[in-house]
Amino acid sequence: MDVAERLAARIGAQQVYTDTHVTSGYARDHAEWAPSGLPAAVVRPRHTEDVRAVVQVCAEMGVPLVGRGAGTGLAGAANASDGWVVVSFERMDRILSVDPVQQTATVQPGVVNGDLREHVAGHGLWYPPDPSSAPWSTIGGNVATNAGGLCCVKYGVTRDYVLGMEAVVGTGEVVRLGRTTAKGVTGYDLCGLMVGSEGTLGLVTEVTLGLRPLRRGGEHTVVGYFDSLARAGEAVAAVATAGITPSALELIDRFCLQAVDSWKNMGLSAEGEVLLLARSDRPGGAGEQEAEDILECFRAQGAVYAVRSTDAEEAEALFAARRLAYPALARLGSVLTEDVCVPKAAVPEMLARVEEAGRRFDTPIGNIAHAGDGNLHPLFVVAPGDEEARARAEKAFAVVVEQALELGGTITGEHGVGLLKKDSAAKELGAEVLGMHRAVKAALDPAGIFNPGKVF
Amino acid sequence: MDVAERLAARIGAQQVYTDTHVTSGYARDHAEWAPSGLPAAVVRPRHTEDVRAVVQVCAEMGVPLVGRGAGTGLAGAANASDGWVVVSFERMDRILSVDPVQQTATVQPGVVNGDLREHVAGHGLWYPPDPSSAPWSTIGGNVATNAGGLCCVKYGVTRDYVLGMEAVVGTGEVVRLGRTTAKGVTGYDLCGLMVGSEGTLGLVTEVTLGLRPLRRGGEHTVVGYFDSLARAGEAVAAVATAGITPSALELIDRFCLQAVDSWKNMGLSAEGEVLLLARSDRPGGAGEQEAEDILECFRAQGAVYAVRSTDAEEAEALFAARRLAYPALARLGSVLTEDVCVPKAAVPEMLARVEEAGRRFDTPIGNIAHAGDGNLHPLFVVAPGDEEARARAEKAFAVVVEQALELGGTITGEHGVGLLKKDSAAKELGAEVLGMHRAVKAALDPAGIFNPGKVF
Repeated sequence: MDVAERLAARIGAQQVYTDTHVTSGYARDHAEWAPSGLPAAVVRPRHTEDVRAVVQVCAEMGVPLVGRGAGTGLAGAANASDGWVVVSFERMDRILSVDPVQQTATVQPGVVNGDLREHVAGHGLWYPPDPSSAPWSTIGGNVATNAGGLCCVKYGVTRDYVLGMEAVVGTGEVVRLGRTTAKGVTGYDLCGLMVGSEGTLGLVTEVTLGLRPLRRGGEHTVVGYFDSLARAGEAVAAVATAGITPSALELIDRFCLQAVDSWKNMGLSAEGEVLLLARSDRPGGAGEQEAEDILECFRAQGAVYAVRSTDAEEAEALFAARRLAYPALARLGSVLTEDVCVPKAAVPEMLARVEEAGRRFDTPIGNIAHAGDGNLHPLFVVAPGDEEARARAEKAFAVVVEQALELGGTITGEHGVGLLKKDSAAKELGAEVLGMHRAVKAALDPAGIFNPGKVF
Repeated sequence: MDVAERLAARIGAQQVYTDTHVTSGYARDHAEWAPSGLPAAVVRPRHTEDVRAVVQVCAEMGVPLVGRGAGTGLAGAANASDGWVVVSFERMDRILSVDPVQQTATVQPGVVNGDLREHVAGHGLWYPPDPSSAPWSTIGGNVATNAGGLCCVKYGVTRDYVLGMEAVVGTGEVVRLGRTTAKGVTGYDLCGLMVGSEGTLGLVTEVTLGLRPLRRGGEHTVVGYFDSLARAGEAVAAVATAGITPSALELIDRFCLQAVDSWKNMGLSAEGEVLLLARSDRPGGAGEQEAEDILECFRAQGAVYAVRSTDAEEAEALFAARRLAYPALARLGSVLTEDVCVPKAAVPEMLARVEEAGRRFDTPIGNIAHAGDGNLHPLFVVAPGDEEARARAEKAFAVVVEQALELGGTITGEHGVGLLKKDSAAKELGAEVLGMHRAVKAALDPAGIFNPGKVF
């Protein structure tokens, strides 16, 4: 029997797909430029027991497998190679429980981030991590990549909210890692180790997430237009220097605003070269004051136009435009997404270096950024089929990664390493730490079946 | 040459102590009831290179070593066995840098928590983790145990603030783990794995900590006296159910208050059986409102006396009494400190079971608790030399741990496993997860020299 037949025998033929019209649709994530192959089978487990059976079959046969949420990843971590098994969690999409006293939710990995947020809001609770993919991406994928988002500047990333999990690990057994209590230090933080491991250490089958009380009373939005990336970067550094922690601090350049305008006709790109969007969610007068302080930072750094937005709908539209920037650029061509993160003080310098790389390699670059975190997403756009432009963009991409390391930054703030950044990850980590990664991987995945060849 | 001679040859005789009058003082931490032996040598490294040399000598000779901060641990994790090498970080106690823009501090492991807090306050910054041992315990020890404290209920634990570190690991090499940027997902979270690993995976030689802006404007304190532990527990659950996140929510019973009174003559124990101390640090009117909401919860649960403290000095004195409870009880006899953490809704039930265990085994128990986290510290007091009382207290201790697991809790919220809780840790983790621990330990400490036999 081949692997698909063995899987069908274990979990039922209706959970196993081998038709290439189906399997090819599960072969890769949104990292267009990363390689992928054709999986031997796609399975859609219904529950943890199915997942365990799949892992056991793969371990017995030595067939690699890769977990998959919504496939919105941007580093190729969910890409299959020829002959692999893809484990798609779309049927394991239930919110199992919400505990309003403990402020936790326990969910299956296939739950969509936005659906969870909406559901817990009904309990007066809030799940902060909000990657731009939140309307589509799943908690399982968010956990595998340790996803970030707009709120991270104040509220942290996915790992900060994963208290415990159930997973199928390298022994083929189901384990519970972490805790459900507010604190807990029994043994190693293997739960935290799984978060961000990009599916290389096991398959997560259930997650207990910490929640916060739903924010009441709205946020104050501050809008600032600047005439250059560098000047906007200075304003970002000024906010950090002033000790302000906004609840969001995002950057969008005119290139992205124009792409959104020409798609959605929002009329956003007229005011200046670069837009900064900041928010304060501090309650009452403290929020008013924080918004004023941010406005003052924007003005002191020479904003062309800066104002506190008093129109909640307009403010929402601006943040919606920020989220639409990536799909808007994807309409123009093939988009290679950067994800470097640098110290906050280095934001102006890093933005200048991104511009310089675009000029040097004659590559159009749109800039969006979780600027308050120092997490920049230069978007390298290449017209479909233009191989020379693509080669130039790849060079520019590599240079930007180098520059981020030179400035004390990291090659990936929130998207992960996947296939796209393996070489630069090796450089950032160094031989010794890479050796530790290999040792941990071999210890926890002795059969080497969990998403091999990703990350390192 | 024996290990001490080899160490002296590598790092200088003046860094190596073998006189048993000295070494016996470094043999154990504050977990009185955990076993310890006499180390062959105590070394006091001056810098990372010294630490590397010590690890290499120990690896070559197969001699176990244990790192040591201030020795304030409560689980025996810092205890030496006969013939071991103790690595005391008291000379590596410098604050290397503070970055006010990035809001980080980079420090050596021997820095005292309270000294760091004071130093960064001078930069307008705040390091939240505040174990009761903060005036004495070191950052290295805090990192090794993933220490908690009073502020955790709102601001999280040590792991939440450790961004990056330098460590000497199992290969005998110096590595950098984690990051210095706000976000970063390159590879496995080996930095997080080191936090709370109780010295079993390497020796931390430098830590980069995230900081927050210093809180301005003071906190509102709410004081509530209750006539029983169970009733105070209901008030704690009521605060959680109301969706309130106080900046502290502590419990002290009359047994502890009387011990503090008779030591410091503070006159605290007259009002009721159990004292709850809550704080709100929300700014302006929001803080006033939160304090009122907490007061309302206290009154609704039948507080004997509940009031918003308007006297900042009095409020400080109450929190000081909370911190003094453990040393005050230690004056009365040998103290065995519990550290279970249960879901918030289970706090009343768990407190009732603690009382029941005290009655059943005729053991005096004082209760302090980070009640808002569900993290309880029943203190079992035994008169010096009373072996029968000690045997009874050990039984009560074991029963309390069992009960915490039964209620969905963990055996240790913040003190760690060390030697004291190895058996119950095995029970909490289960055979499969314990196997993962062993695999990780073998992968990262192949010579088995880092604090072997602790945790699992």
